[in-house]
Amino acid sequence: MILVDYFIRRFEPGDWADVWPILRATFAAGDTYTFAPDISEQEARRTWIEEPLATYIACYGEGNIVGTYKLQSNQPGLGSHVCNCGYVVSPAARGKGIASMMCEHSQGEAIRLGFRAMQFNMVVVTNLAAVHLWKKHGFQIVGTLPKAFRHRQLGYVDAHVMFKRLTHGADG
Amino acid sequence: MILVDYFIRRFEPGDWADVWPILRATFAAGDTYTFAPDISEQEARRTWIEEPLATYIACYGEGNIVGTYKLQSNQPGLGSHVCNCGYVVSPAARGKGIASMMCEHSQGEAIRLGFRAMQFNMVVVTNLAAVHLWKKHGFQIVGTLPKAFRHRQLGYVDAHVMFKRLTHGADG
Repeated sequence: MILVDYFIRRFEPGDWADVWPILRATFAAGDTYTFAPDISEQEARRTWIEEPLATYIACYGEGNIVGTYKLQSNQPGLGSHVCNCGYVVSPAARGKGIASMMCEHSQGEAIRLGFRAMQFNMVVVTNLAAVHLWKKHGFQIVGTLPKAFRHRQLGYVDAHVMFKRLTHGADG
Repeated sequence: MILVDYFIRRFEPGDWADVWPILRATFAAGDTYTFAPDISEQEARRTWIEEPLATYIACYGEGNIVGTYKLQSNQPGLGSHVCNCGYVVSPAARGKGIASMMCEHSQGEAIRLGFRAMQFNMVVVTNLAAVHLWKKHGFQIVGTLPKAFRHRQLGYVDAHVMFKRLTHGADG
């Protein structure tokens, strides 16, 4: 008997054909990410693959891509020790702990890459699963931006800024 | 007698030679903006002139540039109704109310351009003058990011996220 399991690896160019439909479906829903629901493939590739410092793929078995996340500095220069991540799970693979696995993995990668903290700039308050999950992973709600997200179904809704320190050096 | 006064206008390409030294001096101090203290002229131009939706100039009399600000969406797509501004005043012209004048002007421009709110992503807590000024202009501290700014003199310090709604439509 062969145990087929989930694992995470770096994105490779050949993965895009599987990643794009997952991003497209997620962004089209317009309930979690600010990216335009009708985002072009080129723009999605720029924002998810080209601009981030690193992009990762969650796989189930051989070649079944079920999720992806990106990692990048949240600010340039004097704010570049804080990173930002975005996570997307294939609609067909939700509820299996894949986002949680990616969040855990991303914190390890962030530390490895020298980041000291991780910030989520806009966690839509109606995305209760995400708010709950990030809290479980040690993120705190720093504050709530009033009506900062234009939800495709609900109109203007609030969004949280969430933050987690990853290291506690002697210099703070 | 001719009254010489301050006024604000849109940036024009010929202004760059006067704007760059102001930006360079401000960023080099490393106490307010995340931009690298040794930012290149090309990178400064990209971030201050090319990427923003609009850039403005505060003048004193004819041709004396004393400050500048930029205005842009803070997020793409479903977050693009919230704008972000950055303001810089020439070191020689501080304490004359120029930042206040630019903040007031930027709110009018933001409304004119269709924005519903303005967000400052990182107001360094040790920049007391800025925190005080933005509060005076109706901005609220949404939350405080722990050690999110690497101050050139003080090391890691906290930074506020500040926010002001500019319109109160029937839909929120």
